Amino acid sequence: MKKLINAPADVVREAVEGLAAASPELLVWHDAPLYLRRRQPKEHSCVALVSGGGSGHEPLHGGYVGFGMLDAACPGDVFTSPTPDQIEAATRAVATPAGTLHLVKNYTGDVMNFDMARELCQADGMAVEAVVINDDVAVKDSLYTAGRRGMGTTVFAEKICGAAAEQGLDLPGLASLGREVNDNGRSMGMALSSCTVPAAGKPTFTIGAEEMEVGVGIHGEPGCSRTALKPVREIVELLCGRIFADLPFRPGDEALVLVSGMGATPLLELQVVFREVARACGEAGIRITRSLVGNYITSLDMAGVCLSFLRMSARFQELWDFPVHTPALRWGR
Amino acid sequence: MKKLINAPADVVREAVEGLAAASPELLVWHDAPLYLRRRQPKEHSCVALVSGGGSGHEPLHGGYVGFGMLDAACPGDVFTSPTPDQIEAATRAVATPAGTLHLVKNYTGDVMNFDMARELCQADGMAVEAVVINDDVAVKDSLYTAGRRGMGTTVFAEKICGAAAEQGLDLPGLASLGREVNDNGRSMGMALSSCTVPAAGKPTFTIGAEEMEVGVGIHGEPGCSRTALKPVREIVELLCGRIFADLPFRPGDEALVLVSGMGATPLLELQVVFREVARACGEAGIRITRSLVGNYITSLDMAGVCLSFLRMSARFQELWDFPVHTPALRWGR
Repeated sequence: MKKLINAPADVVREAVEGLAAASPELLVWHDAPLYLRRRQPKEHSCVALVSGGGSGHEPLHGGYVGFGMLDAACPGDVFTSPTPDQIEAATRAVATPAGTLHLVKNYTGDVMNFDMARELCQADGMAVEAVVINDDVAVKDSLYTAGRRGMGTTVFAEKICGAAAEQGLDLPGLASLGREVNDNGRSMGMALSSCTVPAAGKPTFTIGAEEMEVGVGIHGEPGCSRTALKPVREIVELLCGRIFADLPFRPGDEALVLVSGMGATPLLELQVVFREVARACGEAGIRITRSLVGNYITSLDMAGVCLSFLRMSARFQELWDFPVHTPALRWGR
Repeated sequence: MKKLINAPADVVREAVEGLAAASPELLVWHDAPLYLRRRQPKEHSCVALVSGGGSGHEPLHGGYVGFGMLDAACPGDVFTSPTPDQIEAATRAVATPAGTLHLVKNYTGDVMNFDMARELCQADGMAVEAVVINDDVAVKDSLYTAGRRGMGTTVFAEKICGAAAEQGLDLPGLASLGREVNDNGRSMGMALSSCTVPAAGKPTFTIGAEEMEVGVGIHGEPGCSRTALKPVREIVELLCGRIFADLPFRPGDEALVLVSGMGATPLLELQVVFREVARACGEAGIRITRSLVGNYITSLDMAGVCLSFLRMSARFQELWDFPVHTPALRWGR
């Protein structure tokens, strides 16, 4: 295993410390339990947003803490859910009288631990709601999931709900908005190589020199097929075909598109991927009105790509365009 | 070779097309000769900025075209200098009556071809100056260079000169500012793995499972030593030691720091690297006033990191903070 780390057991905490050190004007980190929160607390009239999950998906979620997105993020160990006490402490640290919304990716441990934390807070009289993101069209159930896995739509939900929260939308409205984003978001990924979990020290799965894993999850969990590596045009057609058919997207739809590298994919290749996505959308009559191309939801050092599509509405677009100031997304002020 | 591409011969053009398609409000691309330019031309009273170089270093340079940075970028083939006709055409496309500044990384082919393009433009009465970036402290000469190689200080120069150009600084002033940035910038990189050039189809160099290449260049060219892999703390101490001694940086100095992945390095690891850089700076009495952590100057799918430091001045900082709106850097408006 070759990684730029000290000891495997220290990676997550040191990465959190490094993230906060690089954006001291935006972030504060808290140790034991571990979480990141905004340096400037939100106004009391606005709902707080908290997310979290296993580490290894950077910049998700810590890189999205800041104005216009999250108020706090709880990083679990690598590919391991944060504990209920992390989530509870983060929620208490940023909660406002307007309440708190939890954005949770659909993995069994995440859902269970966010549930427990929410119940602990609610028992104390706090208003906390949760939205679960389950946008991966590749598999019905998986190694870590009952139902679909949560993928790139999480980024859309954090941005769009984050903007609406800044604008003062109330907790029921925000939870409803988050579900609407999830209902209109779809993702599917593929991998050229396995990731290597630091504590394991070896690749999570083996894959042949001429093979790819289609529908791979962001923890290296199996996808829906192992096939011969194809030109990127065919890979994108395959992924887009599944995504477009699932919602379904129809001619005339507008879309927000995320082309996210899995962690070890160069931007040169992601740009080629986007070209093919634009072509596939053109053929399907889908108009891309906004896009992100880069590393936004990753899987350690896996080479591959995750495509995420949100069927755009005027409201989603207005909230997407709202100012954001986080380590990983920044525009508009 | 596993890459998300169609044919190796088409990678660069397709990546340029993808970049422009993802940022249609910012960029226009031109085919034969190949270059990218801003969609909104600059005001006539402002000097135009043009850069370029071999592809494979994305987002450099195409990702830095836009308000507050470059007016045009010329992508050569992978790790191959752009041709004089590309550079000349890009310069003619964006030149203003105030003149054009070329920002050139110090590689033999780049310097030669930018020289030829500049002379062709000058022969036609155009005002064109050039600044050469040679900030890599690792090696004196290299496979591709007489003198030091150009690395991450290129990003600093493009941002800082780009801001000053928007503010109306004249051509001699801008060239002088670019040289001042270069004089105060230093970089050094290291690699855990080789990159693979698409047309070659195999890794540029071999490296053992427990080895690292210290002082590696951004084309996979050899560095100054091949040693056993060390904990990231020791790697950062080694790189910072060389960088701090070279300028030299002194206690009390302020610095702009870039921690750039080489293309296949996960953000989780880059955040740990930044933590160690912050520690090393603390010990040396250097105060980090601004920073970037992510993929900003890369080497295809190489795993590793490049550290770049700019000794900060009040003027540099003001220009760094000036609004920028490009695919890869965006803030302030």
